[in-house]
Amino acid sequence: MSNIRPFKVEFVRCWRGGVGVSIIACMTKTCESEFQYARLMEAAIEQALLAQDQGDVPIGAVIANGDGEIIASAYNRRIIDADPTAHAEVLAIRAAADVIGDWRLGGCTLAVTLEPCCMCAGAIVLARLDTVVYGATDPKAGAVDTLYHICNDERLNHRCEIISGVNAAVCGNLLTDFFRAQRAAGKK
Amino acid sequence: MSNIRPFKVEFVRCWRGGVGVSIIACMTKTCESEFQYARLMEAAIEQALLAQDQGDVPIGAVIANGDGEIIASAYNRRIIDADPTAHAEVLAIRAAADVIGDWRLGGCTLAVTLEPCCMCAGAIVLARLDTVVYGATDPKAGAVDTLYHICNDERLNHRCEIISGVNAAVCGNLLTDFFRAQRAAGKK
Repeated sequence: MSNIRPFKVEFVRCWRGGVGVSIIACMTKTCESEFQYARLMEAAIEQALLAQDQGDVPIGAVIANGDGEIIASAYNRRIIDADPTAHAEVLAIRAAADVIGDWRLGGCTLAVTLEPCCMCAGAIVLARLDTVVYGATDPKAGAVDTLYHICNDERLNHRCEIISGVNAAVCGNLLTDFFRAQRAAGKK
Repeated sequence: MSNIRPFKVEFVRCWRGGVGVSIIACMTKTCESEFQYARLMEAAIEQALLAQDQGDVPIGAVIANGDGEIIASAYNRRIIDADPTAHAEVLAIRAAADVIGDWRLGGCTLAVTLEPCCMCAGAIVLARLDTVVYGATDPKAGAVDTLYHICNDERLNHRCEIISGVNAAVCGNLLTDFFRAQRAAGKK
């Protein structure tokens, strides 16, 4: 869990003010944000491990409100629940909406260990989440940066700030190790 | 409900055999399929009306198994449940998986009154549904034919047969009338 690697911040919101103040404030804000993203990803990785413990693909997600407080956590339960929609992101979004009592999750940040697929990227846009933080890239089904850019498509009615590659190696290794073990056990 | 209009069959599976037999069989199969799609759409429209009765956007969906038997029905509950993922298609997929006891819905057909969005098109691919039948096109968020082609993207690991425009006018008018009434009532 301590293997926090540098990650790309694609978009940084700067406070308004004088030039010098802006730069300092921006740097402070960036450090705060990086710490916040790493903290959320650590919690998402803990969720992924819960999926793995139950024999499901290790992907985890958390959602934090505008104060940085984690209000929902979930892990992939597709096999556990025999539900094709039970991806970590969708379950976390449903849980967060339940906590807030509104289908709009504006101001919230979702952190997930793997780049969201089409379904999850679509759900993120529908929920109007402010920020998506993800770990490993998904070359086969990633719909945020890889195959599609659903979370910042100008044609849709909402766009998110995207932070990619947070603790990517740890997130990716979880999946690689899981599928290697599955193959060794003769499972598909 | 009796306003069944002609619709486009983009892909028709033909039985194998001699040329003459193939043509007759193909025509018979086409008529059977068209009747089946119209029947499923009628059931989906009934679901959409249930959403409207409860003040939610009138979109409905059903899923039929390989024998044409409807095994799941659902309607849009985004406002009713305060859940951004509670689109008719996602709810129908979850219900069908629950009935079958498997996350794979191969052999099944989903009929929905409005062209699926990114989330729903992604869920359709994840559930490995055979066929998607939809009514009205969604110019703002359609992800099957309009903005994206998620259900027949060669890069993803599953593709569906797509039948569009089934009873499109009735399906579209439901939405137009609903939003007109909302505006008249001063709701956004």
